[in-house]
Amino acid sequence: MTFGFHMPVKLRFGSGCVSQYGEELAALGSKALIVCGRNSARTNGSLGDVQQTLAQYGRTCVVFDQVDANPGIDCVYEGAAFARAQGVDFVVAVGGGSPMDAAKAIALLACQDVPREALFSGHYGPEVLPMAHVPTTAGTGSEVTPYAVLTNIQAQTKMSMASPVLFPKIAFLDPRYLAYMPKATAVHTAADALSHLVEGMLSVKANPLSDALALEGLRRLSACLTPLEREACTREDYEALLYASTLGGMVIAQTSTVAVHVMGYPLTYHHHLDHGLANGLLLPPFLRFTVRHRPERVDEILKALGLTDVEAFERRMKSLLGKPPVLPQSDLAGYARRCAQIPKIANTIVPPNQQDMLAIYQAALSE
Amino acid sequence: MTFGFHMPVKLRFGSGCVSQYGEELAALGSKALIVCGRNSARTNGSLGDVQQTLAQYGRTCVVFDQVDANPGIDCVYEGAAFARAQGVDFVVAVGGGSPMDAAKAIALLACQDVPREALFSGHYGPEVLPMAHVPTTAGTGSEVTPYAVLTNIQAQTKMSMASPVLFPKIAFLDPRYLAYMPKATAVHTAADALSHLVEGMLSVKANPLSDALALEGLRRLSACLTPLEREACTREDYEALLYASTLGGMVIAQTSTVAVHVMGYPLTYHHHLDHGLANGLLLPPFLRFTVRHRPERVDEILKALGLTDVEAFERRMKSLLGKPPVLPQSDLAGYARRCAQIPKIANTIVPPNQQDMLAIYQAALSE
Repeated sequence: MTFGFHMPVKLRFGSGCVSQYGEELAALGSKALIVCGRNSARTNGSLGDVQQTLAQYGRTCVVFDQVDANPGIDCVYEGAAFARAQGVDFVVAVGGGSPMDAAKAIALLACQDVPREALFSGHYGPEVLPMAHVPTTAGTGSEVTPYAVLTNIQAQTKMSMASPVLFPKIAFLDPRYLAYMPKATAVHTAADALSHLVEGMLSVKANPLSDALALEGLRRLSACLTPLEREACTREDYEALLYASTLGGMVIAQTSTVAVHVMGYPLTYHHHLDHGLANGLLLPPFLRFTVRHRPERVDEILKALGLTDVEAFERRMKSLLGKPPVLPQSDLAGYARRCAQIPKIANTIVPPNQQDMLAIYQAALSE
Repeated sequence: MTFGFHMPVKLRFGSGCVSQYGEELAALGSKALIVCGRNSARTNGSLGDVQQTLAQYGRTCVVFDQVDANPGIDCVYEGAAFARAQGVDFVVAVGGGSPMDAAKAIALLACQDVPREALFSGHYGPEVLPMAHVPTTAGTGSEVTPYAVLTNIQAQTKMSMASPVLFPKIAFLDPRYLAYMPKATAVHTAADALSHLVEGMLSVKANPLSDALALEGLRRLSACLTPLEREACTREDYEALLYASTLGGMVIAQTSTVAVHVMGYPLTYHHHLDHGLANGLLLPPFLRFTVRHRPERVDEILKALGLTDVEAFERRMKSLLGKPPVLPQSDLAGYARRCAQIPKIANTIVPPNQQDMLAIYQAALSE
């Protein structure tokens, strides 16, 4: 048994946690940069909760709400310039994976001059603005990971910044915000959380502790899939979803993701499939591929989900995600070719080769 | 669902981890104070591994090996004075709970002037020497907790310092060191780990995440009890023991301990029962008391241990710990009376009153 574990983020989970633990938010600094998207943080009340809490403790703040889905490199340099110009000393990220990941890059770039060509190098100094993250979707787990995923136009895909300096100091996990997600967002982000939990189990870095967390997350998530599909989530379902999503983040913070995420990125970059949808579509054929070589490992996953076999998993995902889009075969062949070159594929316990990946793409994106 | 979680310690688990991740040890500073006991750290090779690794990275060190079992307040002030006089800038704790807890207090007192009467106040500044912990027993879990338990002669019991500043930066978990424990130490420290896992499940602060970790720990630990008793532990058993012990620490870092630990301290203070033995003897009657009020919770614990009922647990513990010492009835009545005044009893989901505690003491300490 050999493993590492590191997840220094303090968690505060529960309805009203931002205001209840406002002192811990305020302790991060005197002037905050709030990083969010254009709309949802206003709709679901999270931005208001953060602003009100900061005001209550006499902290000032400025808002950077220019983060679109799948933020790019320009966005984070722009945010960092704004942070410097405004003289903020901490960052509060509010929203889904896009603002949370952008906020991490901004918190780093506000303190360090990292040239664009070194942005994904992982070699950064220790200076970073302290961060609080307030997720409003249950998918990314970014609030507990040392990763920031950004769109890299030059590489024509999404790429990860990874460093322990990117861990937030604290995450406020309030399940109330989730109720405002449109169905597609709720389903796609849940598929992302599911993918993190499954990929964590199928990583070469999986270990007893990451497995224990992943299995707990899978058990919790499985109970929410039917309510999610029926748009009938209760408060308890949203709690379970957010808890499972954070567990997924804790898992990949240790194991990283595997081939599924690598293969999903081109679908998002080139065809604008939601990140979680892309992963969710790839999961069933990826499990079907993996079960041939590591049946005992896939069985653990299925059992935690309350399912008996890969076919049941396929039916479950099809019912949840609906009909996949049809993409040109020639595109898929190109993605498989490029993914086969990506070193991270080797993080998978059964690494698919180019031909395997093409077959997985084809199975995922056929009716 | 409302909970908090915080466990910022980086874990490195595996045979040879101190030298394998020596860079991370060396990154803590330039001159180390090594805190250990008089003998075992030398016998089991842990002190040598630490010294050799520090030397390899050009770090100097001094050794403070004056930590006896159940260290007192004098010991930690003496250690802190030595740390200041030697100008060390980090601390490496090597050994069981006694040196690890003493090291935490020393790391704090080396940076802050905390008067003796405020030592257990929990109100400290943020300054502390960075710490690495190298446990050589599988019981205390101190390497992942924000607690330092010290003997307080004035209060005639053991008391806890508690603060997030007492979290080590990193824990090196090498199961090889455990093989050098005498049987009694191995059994008693395992009983302490068991107690942490059980008490964490029976704390008012138990939450889904602490439960998931506790149940994982109980499952792992249960498999080692028979080999422990027979002095027939394999490498895998020691791995499981150390892993379970660290999980126990992660759990009580969130939940704290409950009535069992409170009741155990006087037995250690007045009768020199090993800390783990005291807890292990109290656990069966404590579970028998709790099961009357919260059967479903006790069942979860027993199921994870692979046991069907409290009687089976009693037999298991009796077989493991052997015959308890016989203590004067009048002493027990006094401890029950004093424990009933201790606020921490309220951390127990079914808090025993004075009469309950006397009955638990009597059952624990009769043949």
